[in-house]
Amino acid sequence: MATTTTTRAVTVTAALDRATALAARGPLAGGNPRVGCVLLGVHGDVLAEGHHRGAGTAHAEADALAGVDPARRDELVGGTAVVTLEPCHHAGRTPPCSRALHAAGIARVVHATTDPDPRAAGGAAWLRGHGVDVLTARAAGVDPAVAARAEELTHSWRTAVRRGRPWLVAKTATTLDGRVAAGDGTSRWITSEQAREHAHTVRADVDAILVGTGTVLADDPALTARPPGRAAEAPGLQGAEAPAASLRQPLRVVVGERPVPDDARVRRGPGEWLHLPTRDLGVVLEELHRRGVRQALLEGGPTLLTAALRAGLVDELHAYVAPVLLGTGAGAVGDLGVRTIADALRWRTVTTRRLGEDLFLAARPETPRQDAGSHPQEGES
Amino acid sequence: MATTTTTRAVTVTAALDRATALAARGPLAGGNPRVGCVLLGVHGDVLAEGHHRGAGTAHAEADALAGVDPARRDELVGGTAVVTLEPCHHAGRTPPCSRALHAAGIARVVHATTDPDPRAAGGAAWLRGHGVDVLTARAAGVDPAVAARAEELTHSWRTAVRRGRPWLVAKTATTLDGRVAAGDGTSRWITSEQAREHAHTVRADVDAILVGTGTVLADDPALTARPPGRAAEAPGLQGAEAPAASLRQPLRVVVGERPVPDDARVRRGPGEWLHLPTRDLGVVLEELHRRGVRQALLEGGPTLLTAALRAGLVDELHAYVAPVLLGTGAGAVGDLGVRTIADALRWRTVTTRRLGEDLFLAARPETPRQDAGSHPQEGES
Repeated sequence: MATTTTTRAVTVTAALDRATALAARGPLAGGNPRVGCVLLGVHGDVLAEGHHRGAGTAHAEADALAGVDPARRDELVGGTAVVTLEPCHHAGRTPPCSRALHAAGIARVVHATTDPDPRAAGGAAWLRGHGVDVLTARAAGVDPAVAARAEELTHSWRTAVRRGRPWLVAKTATTLDGRVAAGDGTSRWITSEQAREHAHTVRADVDAILVGTGTVLADDPALTARPPGRAAEAPGLQGAEAPAASLRQPLRVVVGERPVPDDARVRRGPGEWLHLPTRDLGVVLEELHRRGVRQALLEGGPTLLTAALRAGLVDELHAYVAPVLLGTGAGAVGDLGVRTIADALRWRTVTTRRLGEDLFLAARPETPRQDAGSHPQEGES
Repeated sequence: MATTTTTRAVTVTAALDRATALAARGPLAGGNPRVGCVLLGVHGDVLAEGHHRGAGTAHAEADALAGVDPARRDELVGGTAVVTLEPCHHAGRTPPCSRALHAAGIARVVHATTDPDPRAAGGAAWLRGHGVDVLTARAAGVDPAVAARAEELTHSWRTAVRRGRPWLVAKTATTLDGRVAAGDGTSRWITSEQAREHAHTVRADVDAILVGTGTVLADDPALTARPPGRAAEAPGLQGAEAPAASLRQPLRVVVGERPVPDDARVRRGPGEWLHLPTRDLGVVLEELHRRGVRQALLEGGPTLLTAALRAGLVDELHAYVAPVLLGTGAGAVGDLGVRTIADALRWRTVTTRRLGEDLFLAARPETPRQDAGSHPQEGES
């Protein structure tokens, strides 16, 4: 629920920091961006906060407006809305936030990022046309570290919407010598239980999981999200005993021309699955975008990962590295077309974490993918 | 210099914690263990502290005794010596610490570990025979975490002395897919500057660096320790401009039957180098032990590392992993004789650290090497 608080005047930096924290409570998966909103009254007091809880629920601005104490509603007149994303200007399942803010008397809107969705965009322009002072967080003088956190919150979603294809995370789980299986093909388990639990948490945060037919035939994975402790948080469940089946499950996608066996675990519920009989990952990502997928996780195997890397389609790498040596056996990736060290695929480390005995590293390409240049940069508006 | 402090009575746990911190100031390399000592007077006050600064300098106990305020010397009578290692009982370059403590009137000695050196051991027994109460830290009720830190301080040294061969650390610096070079053999650089600086710091902490002749022929490494900022700490140097040449340098050891080229950088100073024309690492480690090497760093290449791993000679693995993918090229290790996942070489992670874009992981074998069972375990006395 939206809450009404009566505090002293806060800075726009503090308000955006709070809006970011609120936004992060929303789901990463589900097709919509995570958005938070803090409403400051004409005297700078926090009048209400709100955030978006996923498709079909109120937008962050509407959530916040609904939480304003009726006795203080007139303090909104001349007030400021601080939001992590530009207010929408389309009537979808909810009315446009631009009009709602204007109707409430808001005089100033500070937003961390612009909305790249052509159907929803235009909120800033419309508000300006109606006399509202609209500023990006950076232009409003917000602490750059706070602004960057707010931008990062929707980075993958905005990138996906701009490009018209899902943000693609590729997962590897290897030994220190880069192997994903021993010489005889056995691979359970290379990584620790903590690493596998983390991987399930990531599965629950994406809209789709991709594997190649080779992986289905070799490993017969279920590809469901079974994050520890998460089931209990889903509404209507009976505590820790609640089955993972009750969670929203990512779409399970099998890519490749070989048929998927009738008894493959990927065919069984909960959630939907899909076989795309093509080797062209561009076609796959286009189809997934059409189905509303904004975040996709590529879980293997080496053939599909190698193809995605060669095509420059991997936006983020999740590497789980176990303190294990095999010496021989299949590697995580095949020939990438790299012949000399200067041509190596280099990544910029975003996060590192120890998971049990293992290391986890999230990284993004060191240089933006070739299509990035034609789109607005981070923080630009 | 030893310092004299007049504080309130401290617990033995606090004293050992302090002795451990003091001991850590001593050099890891140089053949001697790192030892710290805190002397508590008969009323439990800290009378003095000391630590060992390397071969040829005072032992920790002697260093502490020298620091006691002459006006308070009689408080040593009935007092307690808390040391990280059992007091020695041999007259080497310095007189036996056992006798010195007894002569000072110390009534109780608490030591974290026993001395595995047959020439120096016997201090505890001799002291007991002379009416001194001698206890291990664990028997004295010291906080197990503090006792474990004190034990770890000399773990590699004690293991080396017990086994009669150096503690062997093996370094790998790989891509996420386990490669050490691209297909054309180029490898500079895979890891970040921060990772390479860390590796130089480790070089400065060992007595010897080992490489195979293949690495000398392929990479022509200098193998000197050039840790950033360390030179300034060495005595008598002119600040940050002091050349790495002024540091104590590890012995550079080339292993293998092929000749070392006349112009190889490993031949040039500072410090000594050695060519051992054998493939038998057991012979190499025996020779290094004879020369006083207690900590050795195996820096490559794949042939030597694979041989060391197959022989079960690697006590600690230092893995630098860069967020880089190559797809093809030489791997860090060759065939380890592992055919199935159950036989994988598994390691227990000791430390992890982010170094620039890279990950660093230090690990030890999950199960002790086969010869470990015949020796006293950690914390046993």
